[in-house]
Amino acid sequence: MPVNLPAPDPSKLFPIAGVRIGVVEAGVRKQGRKDVSVFLLDPGSSVGGVFTTNRFCAAPVQICQRNLSQGAEIRALLVNTGNANAGTGADGLERAHATCNALAQRLQIDASQVLPFSTGVIMEPLPSDRIIAALDSAIAAAHPDRWLQAAEGIMTTDSVPKAFGAQVSLGGKTVSMTGVSKGAGMIRPNMATMLGFIATDACVHPDLMQPLALALAQQSFNCVTVDGDTSTNDSLVVVATHQAGHARIDSLASPEGQALFVALLGVARQLAHAIVRDGEGATKFITVQIDGGATVQECSKVAYAIAHSPLVKTAFFASDPNLGRILAAVGYAGIADLDQSRIELFLDDVHVATRGGRNPDYQEADGQRVMRQSEIVVRVDLGRGAASHTVWTCDLSHDYVTINADYRS
Amino acid sequence: MPVNLPAPDPSKLFPIAGVRIGVVEAGVRKQGRKDVSVFLLDPGSSVGGVFTTNRFCAAPVQICQRNLSQGAEIRALLVNTGNANAGTGADGLERAHATCNALAQRLQIDASQVLPFSTGVIMEPLPSDRIIAALDSAIAAAHPDRWLQAAEGIMTTDSVPKAFGAQVSLGGKTVSMTGVSKGAGMIRPNMATMLGFIATDACVHPDLMQPLALALAQQSFNCVTVDGDTSTNDSLVVVATHQAGHARIDSLASPEGQALFVALLGVARQLAHAIVRDGEGATKFITVQIDGGATVQECSKVAYAIAHSPLVKTAFFASDPNLGRILAAVGYAGIADLDQSRIELFLDDVHVATRGGRNPDYQEADGQRVMRQSEIVVRVDLGRGAASHTVWTCDLSHDYVTINADYRS
Repeated sequence: MPVNLPAPDPSKLFPIAGVRIGVVEAGVRKQGRKDVSVFLLDPGSSVGGVFTTNRFCAAPVQICQRNLSQGAEIRALLVNTGNANAGTGADGLERAHATCNALAQRLQIDASQVLPFSTGVIMEPLPSDRIIAALDSAIAAAHPDRWLQAAEGIMTTDSVPKAFGAQVSLGGKTVSMTGVSKGAGMIRPNMATMLGFIATDACVHPDLMQPLALALAQQSFNCVTVDGDTSTNDSLVVVATHQAGHARIDSLASPEGQALFVALLGVARQLAHAIVRDGEGATKFITVQIDGGATVQECSKVAYAIAHSPLVKTAFFASDPNLGRILAAVGYAGIADLDQSRIELFLDDVHVATRGGRNPDYQEADGQRVMRQSEIVVRVDLGRGAASHTVWTCDLSHDYVTINADYRS
Repeated sequence: MPVNLPAPDPSKLFPIAGVRIGVVEAGVRKQGRKDVSVFLLDPGSSVGGVFTTNRFCAAPVQICQRNLSQGAEIRALLVNTGNANAGTGADGLERAHATCNALAQRLQIDASQVLPFSTGVIMEPLPSDRIIAALDSAIAAAHPDRWLQAAEGIMTTDSVPKAFGAQVSLGGKTVSMTGVSKGAGMIRPNMATMLGFIATDACVHPDLMQPLALALAQQSFNCVTVDGDTSTNDSLVVVATHQAGHARIDSLASPEGQALFVALLGVARQLAHAIVRDGEGATKFITVQIDGGATVQECSKVAYAIAHSPLVKTAFFASDPNLGRILAAVGYAGIADLDQSRIELFLDDVHVATRGGRNPDYQEADGQRVMRQSEIVVRVDLGRGAASHTVWTCDLSHDYVTINADYRS
């Protein structure tokens, strides 16, 4: 059961003019599962993308990075679940190219205009023949109003589809944006998460798409973690179809650029948070906020040390205010000159530790009360400066072990 | 159930001339538990120690570091379980000093000649009065032949006591060495492990004790990990009582120095491995060996990325050869210029991946066979140079979550 994550609201999943989506069953790994999706983009759309920093990045990630860096006009995204096509060497690249070529041929575009995405088990050969056999029906099924199906079509161990949309008024025109994401385990995005696709009909200078995608990732997908495992396939793609009819945005710093960014960030954060709320075995949604750091980087180190500590995560699962474990994680986060006597620790509104020791006014019952909640804010003040950083994570439960000890799903 | 870790063999726990041990029940946290131990050292003994790098190091660790750096002749170790006296601020230091003062008074030595050690729950006040009240009976009970009781007296979540001994002939004399350790969770030693005490009657130049302790830690306790949580209380202490009667060792590089080091390292490694074999919830003992690195440091990064990955650890628990997870961990270990096409992966004798992809000759049945074993060697060749590093770890099971989600033990 995901933590406070209702099913997507279809009335908020706005069709985006210029984007059509087709989702089909190709039998990539199992029968009877929607596992291949195509996103078809009208000519003139712009695309930005950010990808995993894992050096074992998957074959499709390598192709995406090349196609985007070469500036090809992207016309289609091709997504499969059931197989990550990672750890597959030269053969994996060949199979990914084969699927792109097959889709390009059917759409009468160049293969470099296709971005491929794969997610699923690592180090197994991609069944490219089965994916290619499903392309005709995927193209035939393509329709603008298929975002919910897209969210379903990219699920692996996700327990619910993840899709959010928003609208904002720019220059008197209504601009829509809708996004989908997937991911529940192997989550410690480092540039982006497993898979996230966001599209808008906004008119944005094409050169802004890459910095836009990066800025969105940095403040959403790059701030969540489930288990600290950075995936081989992390990809976030942002599409603008330029069909909303307002004056083109040429700077993200303009009032319109800011309004668009804030609205897109809202969607991106909901998608990223949804991944944590649906984290494998998650029963709690934890916000880890570090204040008073000398730099954002050291705040991030401390936040991730807390968010990754199996001891902290199991204490949250147990609703046990064994909060010394948080102090221990602060201590080993890697700040060499940290002065423990300046550390303050809060659990929501409860002041747990002061000057590195237990707050004399702290009552265990207060800590217990907060630990029982399904949403908890851990706040640490490092007493070193004015920098802050926040990450979002979940607890570590029996179900995480069950899900990941199961034979490959 | 620990992994291939039998109960200590009493015939191998050699009394060390110059060391007497007393273990009593003080009711530090629970009644009916041996929880306070004193190690009384004859005058003229030498002591070296290495301690946690956690910046939230406990009050006793701070006192140990000061007493050792001031060169005081150490005459007693005072150990309690049930309370870590960490995250306790100025009050924690006062309470630790009070216990040292009380023991020093009874032994007619200076308080700076006492090294205190605490392990247990963090951020609770140390019940120093109860520890002090138990000192007379601990001193009265002190006897050289109490190593097994010492191992029992320092246990917390350990399921078995951990004690090993060895003898070696130096200059025609028999030199004995015996050690005890404790620890099962919050294990990613960074200079040493939770608690380890090793004593020998060897005659060693006192100036060699600190480098000896460091070298032993680097090749034993600093190469094991259970959950990646570096404790606030890690301490390894090595004592030499100089009573074996052989010519004093003035260099660790001499033949006698080497013979002593190798024998001590054997004991230290057994103690360190015992912590992993008894790792919370462990069902498997995993050796992660990284070869072909450009530096030992990068080999260590890769080894710990594998050893800490919850996905890799749950796959070992499930005996599931989902070995792409190992490649993913290699990829995110932080080697920026890693070339995935040079990576080779072996599971014991089974060649799983070659040139970054699945080995065409690899049969899943072979991987499955190795994964079912209780002892497994994972070997990765990075294809970058001649450096190697090995770490030892265990799997991640339901019992780890159960143990750590239990209300404070």
